[in-house]
Amino acid sequence: MPQVRRNVVIVGAGFGGLSAARELAKAPVNITIIDQQNHHLFQPLLYQVATASLTPAEIAVPIRHVLRSQNNAQVIMDRVVGVDTKSQNVTTESGRTVPYDTLVVATGARHSYFGKDQWADHAPGLKTLSDALALREKILTAFEKAEIVVDSDPEAAKRFQTFVVIGAGPTGVEMAGAIAELAQSVMRDFRKIDKANNRIILLEGGPRVLPSFAQDLSQRAEADLQALGVEVRTGTMVTDIVAGKVTTDQDSIAAETVIWAAGVQASPAGKWLSLPVTGSGHVPVDATLRPQGFENVYVIGDTARHEADGTALPGIAPVAKQMGIYVGRRLAALARGQTPSKRFRYSDAGALATIGRNSAVADIYGMKVKGFAGWLLWGAAHVYFLIGFKNRLFVMLHWLWLYVTWQRGVRLIMHREPDRHAERTS
Amino acid sequence: MPQVRRNVVIVGAGFGGLSAARELAKAPVNITIIDQQNHHLFQPLLYQVATASLTPAEIAVPIRHVLRSQNNAQVIMDRVVGVDTKSQNVTTESGRTVPYDTLVVATGARHSYFGKDQWADHAPGLKTLSDALALREKILTAFEKAEIVVDSDPEAAKRFQTFVVIGAGPTGVEMAGAIAELAQSVMRDFRKIDKANNRIILLEGGPRVLPSFAQDLSQRAEADLQALGVEVRTGTMVTDIVAGKVTTDQDSIAAETVIWAAGVQASPAGKWLSLPVTGSGHVPVDATLRPQGFENVYVIGDTARHEADGTALPGIAPVAKQMGIYVGRRLAALARGQTPSKRFRYSDAGALATIGRNSAVADIYGMKVKGFAGWLLWGAAHVYFLIGFKNRLFVMLHWLWLYVTWQRGVRLIMHREPDRHAERTS
Repeated sequence: MPQVRRNVVIVGAGFGGLSAARELAKAPVNITIIDQQNHHLFQPLLYQVATASLTPAEIAVPIRHVLRSQNNAQVIMDRVVGVDTKSQNVTTESGRTVPYDTLVVATGARHSYFGKDQWADHAPGLKTLSDALALREKILTAFEKAEIVVDSDPEAAKRFQTFVVIGAGPTGVEMAGAIAELAQSVMRDFRKIDKANNRIILLEGGPRVLPSFAQDLSQRAEADLQALGVEVRTGTMVTDIVAGKVTTDQDSIAAETVIWAAGVQASPAGKWLSLPVTGSGHVPVDATLRPQGFENVYVIGDTARHEADGTALPGIAPVAKQMGIYVGRRLAALARGQTPSKRFRYSDAGALATIGRNSAVADIYGMKVKGFAGWLLWGAAHVYFLIGFKNRLFVMLHWLWLYVTWQRGVRLIMHREPDRHAERTS
Repeated sequence: MPQVRRNVVIVGAGFGGLSAARELAKAPVNITIIDQQNHHLFQPLLYQVATASLTPAEIAVPIRHVLRSQNNAQVIMDRVVGVDTKSQNVTTESGRTVPYDTLVVATGARHSYFGKDQWADHAPGLKTLSDALALREKILTAFEKAEIVVDSDPEAAKRFQTFVVIGAGPTGVEMAGAIAELAQSVMRDFRKIDKANNRIILLEGGPRVLPSFAQDLSQRAEADLQALGVEVRTGTMVTDIVAGKVTTDQDSIAAETVIWAAGVQASPAGKWLSLPVTGSGHVPVDATLRPQGFENVYVIGDTARHEADGTALPGIAPVAKQMGIYVGRRLAALARGQTPSKRFRYSDAGALATIGRNSAVADIYGMKVKGFAGWLLWGAAHVYFLIGFKNRLFVMLHWLWLYVTWQRGVRLIMHREPDRHAERTS
């Protein structure tokens, strides 16, 4: 008595969506995974692409390729524009209608400028490979421009040599440390600009860096950042950002490169589903990761707001991954007529952040690890979680190369020319 | 009695310009090298970036980095917009004026559509990393779109699975072979589209592929291309190109991806210098690589037209490199008060073109090498000439990986989103 295989549609192939799909590999269901990108991105290392340590290909892998042997899964590269929960269809930008029996929404988050969207042009954030390449280009071009103008306009050169990172969570801390190291390593290749004029400033509204970490790890991270030459300014609120200038509640900073690592909001999935959402756009879900009133819709990862013991889970990769695994197992059990586990439980392995060469802070299963040991742990954990053996191998080789030689391999500025047919070199 | 060090300005850091700069490393001159890109590009392997085999960082290296230990050289990333040969100044886009005593113009070439510039939008060429990434995106997206539309519009799917390469010189031949292999390898990851509908068509106006090679090597290349599934159509002139369609003097081909490898023209350096140029914009130079009437201006590489024994030298890397070395040595001799070599002589080592995995044709010092032996020779020569040990190492590893696994590592579509702040996944 063969059953009709039910359609599971997964929107988003980040950590959450991909984990759900893989967990369903042997389940008797048809999976369709829809993403507007063709690749799964290892976001925790995105800042290393932005700071010229890794190449895009080392932290991204085609979704199709990850699922190539999974015969019950098909991949559609398209952008979802709406969901009709009555007729149980997903609509895409290219006009396609994809019917579902069960829908898994794993669409992640985007930057939030707390209503100041005009800041976005001057203080880009870091979510996609395009963001990372644009930022890499901006940072590397800043040094080139400083070198050009330093004789005629030393103040402008200083502005080009000043980098402001807003927000001192893990992304902001890692970004500031990586820029400090990049600045140090590229300076050897320039003839005119003065190393002493490089400024990397990390702004944080709260009282300490890495607020989600233990107090002593925050202190160690701050000390390590300062040792790298980063000016750490906690308790500082940004009040305005315009081209070339960041204004805070205390002073203003002339800087051509400003990076936003301060806020995120969930993707518009709540709107598609006509659901109540939190102020930051997150969809509240119950213990089985479903929004209230939906039997066959799951919302996971950075899009969801799930409370465990009264506090919301953070928007980090391990949470998304574990949610994806839970939903995958749950749907597999249901497809087989078994009883699924009653509730999602997050197993918190801890947190890790790296500050630079030889230094990281980690809080793993209650153990606090700092400095070089923390850095080794950080590297091992990140290589371990990279998808695909080839990527692991190449990232390890690349890091080893960087470590031994201090040479950044990916210092390429690949701007699209204003005129596509302009000559190759000026 | 110390002499005043003279200023040598080199415009363009391709094979010609960079070779000249390096040859002047120990000469008592001040070198300024100006390029609109920050990197030297190993153009002969650019098609491998466009076909997802290599990453941009593997074939490009920051110019500054190449010259970091050369204390008599400075690098300016800027675009040259004019030359005043009276006052001996170069003017750049950013408004800078760079004085020279000797000027070396090594600005390369760009695509030429033989007056049909409207074809450019539908049939892009391959000169820069941006070109290569845009093409990679276009090729990979074509398969994704075919997979989306194949059920509703099979004809459109076929159009997306058809790739036309125009021009069967080394670039066109290598591109067609690489697309055929890419098509073969990605098909395993798709569920719906039919491999049999993949068409790769190579159009050539002349009677045979690789017209600059010996007859029997052309024949072998054509046979090898056909073995890879490439339709080779010689004696076919393109008469029109619009979106989705190429028209020839024989029929029309419905294809979404069309690649231009048919013609080049020199950069506008002739215009800057108010010189007579050839129909394709090349600047005729004498035996010392100077245009007539100029004592202190050299024009080299793809920008120059230099006749040896009555025929013009081809626009290829070895010619540019040897010209750069000649000019570098000449200027070094002059700076030291020595007598420079009277004339440039091109030493023709031969030509190489690869058709795909295990197959290449080579004509080296009169020896003809084909098939697997040719392919090994091709790989060794290209790795050898790559600048920088790290790049060599990584390219070799990457090729080895591809060879053993058939997996393309760089199948990333990184389009800039229409809305920068759109959610990460749809």
